[in-house]
Amino acid sequence: MNAITELSQRVAATGVAVASISNSNHLGRLAWYAEHVAANGNVLIATTTSEALVHPWGGRVAMLGTNPLAIGIPAEPHPFVLDMATGVVSMGLIHDRASRGQKLQEGWALDADGFPTVDAARAVTGAIAPFGGAKGYGLGLALEVLVAALTGSALGRHVHGTLDEESVCNKGDVFILLSGSNSAVPAISSYLAEIRAVAPLHASAPVQAPGDGSRARRERAYRDGIALPERLSMELLRLAAARHAKEGDVSQGSA
Amino acid sequence: MNAITELSQRVAATGVAVASISNSNHLGRLAWYAEHVAANGNVLIATTTSEALVHPWGGRVAMLGTNPLAIGIPAEPHPFVLDMATGVVSMGLIHDRASRGQKLQEGWALDADGFPTVDAARAVTGAIAPFGGAKGYGLGLALEVLVAALTGSALGRHVHGTLDEESVCNKGDVFILLSGSNSAVPAISSYLAEIRAVAPLHASAPVQAPGDGSRARRERAYRDGIALPERLSMELLRLAAARHAKEGDVSQGSA
Repeated sequence: MNAITELSQRVAATGVAVASISNSNHLGRLAWYAEHVAANGNVLIATTTSEALVHPWGGRVAMLGTNPLAIGIPAEPHPFVLDMATGVVSMGLIHDRASRGQKLQEGWALDADGFPTVDAARAVTGAIAPFGGAKGYGLGLALEVLVAALTGSALGRHVHGTLDEESVCNKGDVFILLSGSNSAVPAISSYLAEIRAVAPLHASAPVQAPGDGSRARRERAYRDGIALPERLSMELLRLAAARHAKEGDVSQGSA
Repeated sequence: MNAITELSQRVAATGVAVASISNSNHLGRLAWYAEHVAANGNVLIATTTSEALVHPWGGRVAMLGTNPLAIGIPAEPHPFVLDMATGVVSMGLIHDRASRGQKLQEGWALDADGFPTVDAARAVTGAIAPFGGAKGYGLGLALEVLVAALTGSALGRHVHGTLDEESVCNKGDVFILLSGSNSAVPAISSYLAEIRAVAPLHASAPVQAPGDGSRARRERAYRDGIALPERLSMELLRLAAARHAKEGDVSQGSA
């Protein structure tokens, strides 16, 4: 957040400020930054790269990060927050399906030999498809190259360090902060309300704006807590116990 | 191009410069600007809005422009140029199919009543689907709102003026020019070469980088000319003749 604080101070005078960050570790969720900046009245365009997990459109090998793009913009009653990875699904979802023994949808992934697979366990060592065919691939590739151009980060299969604890992380992050026009907020807010009120194709699925689903899930989680699969819950308790034992704090390791 | 020239001069000192443009007309192809900026050693992120032609994901009515995103980045032997609209196809393609009596693919469009259609003539008055499902919709919507936040442009169904000659154009354009790092060009160029060399899923379709197809078509057109459908060719000659007659230059109106 130091970069965001610094950019927020500069942008009042300059109208735009950019942070190009290299050799930093996984930054978590871009949405968090986008929401924070927009809630404070500015616009954020942010992107970051990752280990190569996504194959180019029409290719057999993972060559791109899941390269998410986030855009945060002031609006009422909530800031507008887009945060989307450029893979059709996340590697986390593929691991989750593999751990539950569930199949993938066709077109989501290739195995390690570059052949399409619906077997999640085989996809874990393969490649995820880009979202949206050639266009989504184009976007993901543009973000990979953009981040390298601005930060000097590594590209494609040369990126490492967010998925292991040994390598120095050599991916890059880019934050572009812009001062928005306060006078645009009412028109933007009305427009987003119009979007949510559009007649839906399926009566049971109202039209949403990006971030609506996440916001609802967050509110539910604050209220009801988060349900973890028992296996994951046990694994977390086991790790906590091991950590406490290692630190000599065995008193809390018995949960 | 005045904005691009101005931004290019400023960016040498500031590292980033932004043009937010309102009340200007259709700017043609964003790729042209992206290629120009990248060929001169800088990075361009550019977007623009249009009349509402694209429906929100899961909705029945056109509420978004085709909102293209372009990203240009210095690379060898060609600049990297992405220029993609956020509709699954262009309205131009739907008009073209309608004029040829050809069907659309399922999922491309809705008719004026908000029902899915493969009849191009009915889709002309309806809505185009966003590319890439919910993610492509999210991107298109983010660009619509981003442009409004920075330029004060109209939004959604309030945008007019690029498809008619009567209204003042109230869409917006945003150009973000950044100074790239020259030292990143070799790594980016190698990476793009690696991408193009990835084993293809189908032997007859090598992996491409964004812009490769357009560049090849442009080179072919310079060499062989452009083949127009006869009907369009006749229509252009008719318009040219009418224009010449109106200007009193009937000598060139007989072609």
